[in-house]
Amino acid sequence: MKSIIRRMDISSALQSKIDHKTKPLGSLGRLEELALQIGRIQNTLAPRLIAPHLLVCAGDHGAAKAGISAYPQEVTWQMVENFLAGGAAINVLSRQAGMTLVVADAGVAHDFGVRPRLVDAKVAYGTDSYLDGAAMTPAQCLLAMTHGEKAFNTIATTGCNVIGFGEMGIGNTASASLMTHCLTGTPLCVGRGTGLDDAGLARKQALLTQALVLWPDTLPPRQGEGWGGDGFPLAVLARYGGFEIAMLVGAMQAAAKARCLLLIDGFIVTSALLVAHALQPSILDYCVFAHRSGEPGHSVQLAYLKARPLLELDLRLGEGTGAALAYPILVSACAFLSDMASFESAGVESASSKI
Amino acid sequence: MKSIIRRMDISSALQSKIDHKTKPLGSLGRLEELALQIGRIQNTLAPRLIAPHLLVCAGDHGAAKAGISAYPQEVTWQMVENFLAGGAAINVLSRQAGMTLVVADAGVAHDFGVRPRLVDAKVAYGTDSYLDGAAMTPAQCLLAMTHGEKAFNTIATTGCNVIGFGEMGIGNTASASLMTHCLTGTPLCVGRGTGLDDAGLARKQALLTQALVLWPDTLPPRQGEGWGGDGFPLAVLARYGGFEIAMLVGAMQAAAKARCLLLIDGFIVTSALLVAHALQPSILDYCVFAHRSGEPGHSVQLAYLKARPLLELDLRLGEGTGAALAYPILVSACAFLSDMASFESAGVESASSKI
Repeated sequence: MKSIIRRMDISSALQSKIDHKTKPLGSLGRLEELALQIGRIQNTLAPRLIAPHLLVCAGDHGAAKAGISAYPQEVTWQMVENFLAGGAAINVLSRQAGMTLVVADAGVAHDFGVRPRLVDAKVAYGTDSYLDGAAMTPAQCLLAMTHGEKAFNTIATTGCNVIGFGEMGIGNTASASLMTHCLTGTPLCVGRGTGLDDAGLARKQALLTQALVLWPDTLPPRQGEGWGGDGFPLAVLARYGGFEIAMLVGAMQAAAKARCLLLIDGFIVTSALLVAHALQPSILDYCVFAHRSGEPGHSVQLAYLKARPLLELDLRLGEGTGAALAYPILVSACAFLSDMASFESAGVESASSKI
Repeated sequence: MKSIIRRMDISSALQSKIDHKTKPLGSLGRLEELALQIGRIQNTLAPRLIAPHLLVCAGDHGAAKAGISAYPQEVTWQMVENFLAGGAAINVLSRQAGMTLVVADAGVAHDFGVRPRLVDAKVAYGTDSYLDGAAMTPAQCLLAMTHGEKAFNTIATTGCNVIGFGEMGIGNTASASLMTHCLTGTPLCVGRGTGLDDAGLARKQALLTQALVLWPDTLPPRQGEGWGGDGFPLAVLARYGGFEIAMLVGAMQAAAKARCLLLIDGFIVTSALLVAHALQPSILDYCVFAHRSGEPGHSVQLAYLKARPLLELDLRLGEGTGAALAYPILVSACAFLSDMASFESAGVESASSKI
């Protein structure tokens, strides 16, 4: 086997390797699709996942003070402390998956001091409220994206070639709803986030509708008019996003540029991907969608991106928990490709050898 | 906390423990359901999965010679050799999952000789063809079930409290289709198995319809008539089943009796469970359904059992591959219950403490 395989040949060479394994054709289903995708990204017939990381970005949202969440804003920094102490769901699940957890303060409304295990990427003490204007300035938005790029580049020094993304930020399902509406052209889809009751959901719906009225330019562009180029997705990100979401956009772009596999979590992480995708659609080649969140807007995003997630476990926690739970499936996809016998090597008759 | 918790209290105590973890209520979705189920089975607030095993039973089918499979019957023993050599999908995936693989010859049409790593549970060199009569005698059926019970009891000496099930047997999707029809009262649902083309599928459909005509008693009993008690499910098993399926029935019964967690794989394994369920419906309390197979009859079975599988990865390989892939999710369910901080211990405000 040649050590260098031309890009145009790698897909058919991978498919041939998959098809000669001792199993009925196609019978490993989505595991075969994953093996093909990872092999293509790594341009090899023997892909390996190296130094898996999970980057969790945290930030606060000015609009959270208006009452769009079941939890007070202070929970953002308290949960960051929980991440640092090792007690949160993502600590447990990333440890189970064998992924290294990296936590970044993209803009939490709290002073953590110097903390060796926290990436200091703070842009400000929370965004401004999009109920009063833009959540962030263009400069802040770009700074947060640059922080994401830098965070990935630091992670990449470990040799990492697969990275999951997570987030923490009270109020950020509201941002994700607004961004999804603007970037997909679908009706505003508002969910319960961390657990709003019916009255809270109605209040969130009203506030987000008001936020859109205040900035009519974010209405989905109709055919032949509206924003063009890179301006629109970045304008949406700055208007309605959060620092943690902007940081994720930058990290995703850097990871795809480095031909890393991107493991996409739920509703908020996918709202970051919507921005990155609007800027460069080919980023999807590097993405695996870990799960379908219980937050209804996530299904809207997945349908828009024509993405089929690996898991449907009714998770709606964020933090990257879905990414951590899906990671073992990626490992198994690489393992079957590397370690299974072929019909020839095992002396097993294949279907085509019958009769 | 009391060391012994009364059974009637364990569910509410588990739910309370789950609800005090640092996450929105219910936000870990099916992971929470799993933690509750496993905690109930083990009657503890700190369930642990110990010595996980995967039992793969292999057997041959007399009807396979009539041309109901894309592969020749010899593939059964060749694949058992592949299991023993470590080259099959289930070798790779059970190793990834950290599960100990146990392979049993329940009735393969091949002489393996004395093999230290193969459980000798051979009832005969394959079943008779249900196109000519019963696949097995009542005595053979009960012997295969007893072999399953013994195989589990041997595994149980390791302290095992979670067991996945898998199978190998050319022609056994046909048995599963017939058994599912008889035991659920749904129309005969025939799939492509290992990969039949349209002509092969039509032939399989015709042969299985013929097999039912030959034994009209297996038609689903109508309200108020038909078979009663244990006779009917065992008669169906003996008429249309395979030795590997009967062995799985016995192993499942023994595992549930030992309060072990049962990890159910795909179409053929679930056909064994249909028998065990007909004999004792409460076995479902011990079952986790690993995945939804691409074989259409599996969805019929799952609907009948009101079961929702963890994974939908379009697998249709058998061998227990779905069980191995789902196992890490069970581990994660136990891990979050044991290792996550509570709101109190982490100093995080809960939703109810808001305002």
